[in-house]
Amino acid sequence: MIRLNAFDMACVGHIQHGMWTHPRDQSTHYHRLDHWLDLARLLERGLFDGLFLADVLGIYDVLGGSADAAIRNGVQVPLLDPMLVVPGMAAVTTHLGFGVTANLSYEAPYLFARRMSTLDHLTNGRIGWNIVTGYLDSAARAMGLDRQQQHDDRYDLADEYMEVVTRLWRESWDDTAVRADRATGIYADPAQVRRIHHNGPQYRLDAHHLVAPSPQRVPVLYQAGASARGIRFAAQHAECVFLNGGPPDAVRAQITALREAAAPRRIMAFVGATPVMGRTEAEARDKLEDYRRHASVEGALAHAAASLGIDFEPFGMDEPITAQSNAIQSNVTAMARASGGVLTKRGLIDQFILGSRQKPITGSVDQVAETLISFAAATGADGFNLSRTVAPECWREAVEWLVPALQERGAYKTAYAPGTYREKLFS
Amino acid sequence: MIRLNAFDMACVGHIQHGMWTHPRDQSTHYHRLDHWLDLARLLERGLFDGLFLADVLGIYDVLGGSADAAIRNGVQVPLLDPMLVVPGMAAVTTHLGFGVTANLSYEAPYLFARRMSTLDHLTNGRIGWNIVTGYLDSAARAMGLDRQQQHDDRYDLADEYMEVVTRLWRESWDDTAVRADRATGIYADPAQVRRIHHNGPQYRLDAHHLVAPSPQRVPVLYQAGASARGIRFAAQHAECVFLNGGPPDAVRAQITALREAAAPRRIMAFVGATPVMGRTEAEARDKLEDYRRHASVEGALAHAAASLGIDFEPFGMDEPITAQSNAIQSNVTAMARASGGVLTKRGLIDQFILGSRQKPITGSVDQVAETLISFAAATGADGFNLSRTVAPECWREAVEWLVPALQERGAYKTAYAPGTYREKLFS
Repeated sequence: MIRLNAFDMACVGHIQHGMWTHPRDQSTHYHRLDHWLDLARLLERGLFDGLFLADVLGIYDVLGGSADAAIRNGVQVPLLDPMLVVPGMAAVTTHLGFGVTANLSYEAPYLFARRMSTLDHLTNGRIGWNIVTGYLDSAARAMGLDRQQQHDDRYDLADEYMEVVTRLWRESWDDTAVRADRATGIYADPAQVRRIHHNGPQYRLDAHHLVAPSPQRVPVLYQAGASARGIRFAAQHAECVFLNGGPPDAVRAQITALREAAAPRRIMAFVGATPVMGRTEAEARDKLEDYRRHASVEGALAHAAASLGIDFEPFGMDEPITAQSNAIQSNVTAMARASGGVLTKRGLIDQFILGSRQKPITGSVDQVAETLISFAAATGADGFNLSRTVAPECWREAVEWLVPALQERGAYKTAYAPGTYREKLFS
Repeated sequence: MIRLNAFDMACVGHIQHGMWTHPRDQSTHYHRLDHWLDLARLLERGLFDGLFLADVLGIYDVLGGSADAAIRNGVQVPLLDPMLVVPGMAAVTTHLGFGVTANLSYEAPYLFARRMSTLDHLTNGRIGWNIVTGYLDSAARAMGLDRQQQHDDRYDLADEYMEVVTRLWRESWDDTAVRADRATGIYADPAQVRRIHHNGPQYRLDAHHLVAPSPQRVPVLYQAGASARGIRFAAQHAECVFLNGGPPDAVRAQITALREAAAPRRIMAFVGATPVMGRTEAEARDKLEDYRRHASVEGALAHAAASLGIDFEPFGMDEPITAQSNAIQSNVTAMARASGGVLTKRGLIDQFILGSRQKPITGSVDQVAETLISFAAATGADGFNLSRTVAPECWREAVEWLVPALQERGAYKTAYAPGTYREKLFS
């Protein structure tokens, strides 16, 4: 059974930059609550497992040393807080899960634990957390620091953070602590509620968790790190991982490595995918061409430069791009590999514009359904994170065309499983 | 025209402790989203100006040096994050304002500014912020500190915080920065978006605000400080103040002092009130007696001890309570005054159990309406923050009985004014 998440972000341009200029696109409504309510209702109609919301703190100011290109093209800025987008959608759905990206580096564990527990209560157990540590110096400067911590140090901090928040979620309130006994007037039994003490190199805390046990206690934990240290972190903490995609062999190797590292703990793999569908293959190709005419080269470069930590403004289109000291090495390696070994500006533009980074799966609905099924079989992937092209039509087509085609092939559920997000995912 | 806010909190026991044991009370549903959706719909039906959500970080562990009494009686613990309760309610209402309490001491200005801007977008300009700096050492320990900052230092920090967040809200994006021009592909004009630099004694920041201008840009600013320093802060920053109530003369003096300090800036005053109504006066008195039978003395003491910063467990019922060094002086003074000059445990219990702290206004609907009207006239108050007794009946009676009675007397609007929360309040 293939699982589907919609992969979106509370901004104009998420991954496929420039699509907002398409006459049918409504991404500029990202700041309106009804935009999200409509999306949530639609995804639940399509039995999507979850809506996965990306987030980034800071701004993409690596290209040319300025944020101008990102601002001009709406590249992940302006950007709302994704946590606050969830409760409205929870109000109009019953089963859809919500995977929220949150950067732990700048959030006190005590307050963050309360936020997640609150969301788990309000969604009735439908919350997930995509654990990120950030990668932008612009975020550090926004927090009063000169620069961010080094890559591996961020993961050490994240390990300690996970220990603190997990203890707040799991150990502070016993399952039977809340009695709500009107006759005796005892709301909760103090003997079953305790302070968590933590005194580590990065965090200190001595406190009761503010929230009584929520349906899941711990949100479903997502992670997307691709470095060796990131994979080690995922193997230790994550229940689901998100992979950017690529050739089946490479994805299969990544998934296998993760599963081996996590064993015997089960880990679920979602792979990024961008379907561009038509009722016929020709219609799909025309649609891709139409979409690509709206793509923004400048937006793609602004995003790519920040993702790689390399200002490649000085490089010619086909000049090999040499990594700089503060480059994000796992992304550089992945993108060079996807470009045939050598990283060039032309190759990056190609990857970022409806290209190989989230390679569009272009074809008739039946072709796309079969491609996803065979990709999952070949790689061991559990499902896909579908990214946004021209919205809302990309979501409508996924729900109205792709899901029935997968169902016809026995590869997609016909009803939600009962229970929490975690129970649904792992049922 | 009298303005009404519902004063509530995402917990079992807010101010009137023990009411959750009443057979008709549903406060134990505080963690369910539909509980809040129902409340928001009801309040909007009653043309309430706002729902004002209290919050506190930390736990009430002053009484007997332990949190046991607070936990046992559900005294503001467990407690959800009030910000996350808002977007669901925004999805089912159009006009109701939301005043959210948030403690600035432990939130990075950069992240907090994004949260408030997000809420202002999602509510379409209906967000307010009750600015607090916290008063519990238990919150400081939860944040890895040994104790909180001193009272006046917290206000100095708050002044600087307000400067930073206000600059993010007002100065980072020009009104015309967002162009969303599909023809040219320009989403926003970089020349109209700028980094905010701040380098102060408490905060450093060098960042673009992440969110484009929201309908109000700055949330409606509420404040409730009663100390001299608190009043100075309110006079400088607040648009609305919240007063606990008390004899009309004292309230009038407070409001006058605030208005003089804030002049020529207009400042709006909401006074706490707890109506207990019946169709007749006798029915109201019976209802008050019924409610009081469910009141929790232990819960009231746990709350009072934390509010005053005094552990009065060692004191006899009628023994004068002497203030301790870390007492919250403005509260001690106010409560001693309300007890006739001398603070005793018996006096505190009386104040905290449907007593003079939020003195119940008990009577027939007409009597209560007239009391509110004459109180507002005598004090210059602009409206009332109605606190919760047995819910939801207290809210239903306010909407179905009190509002029509005020309307009959020409003292309450018959429709919402157009515009944002601020525009509605100050129209």
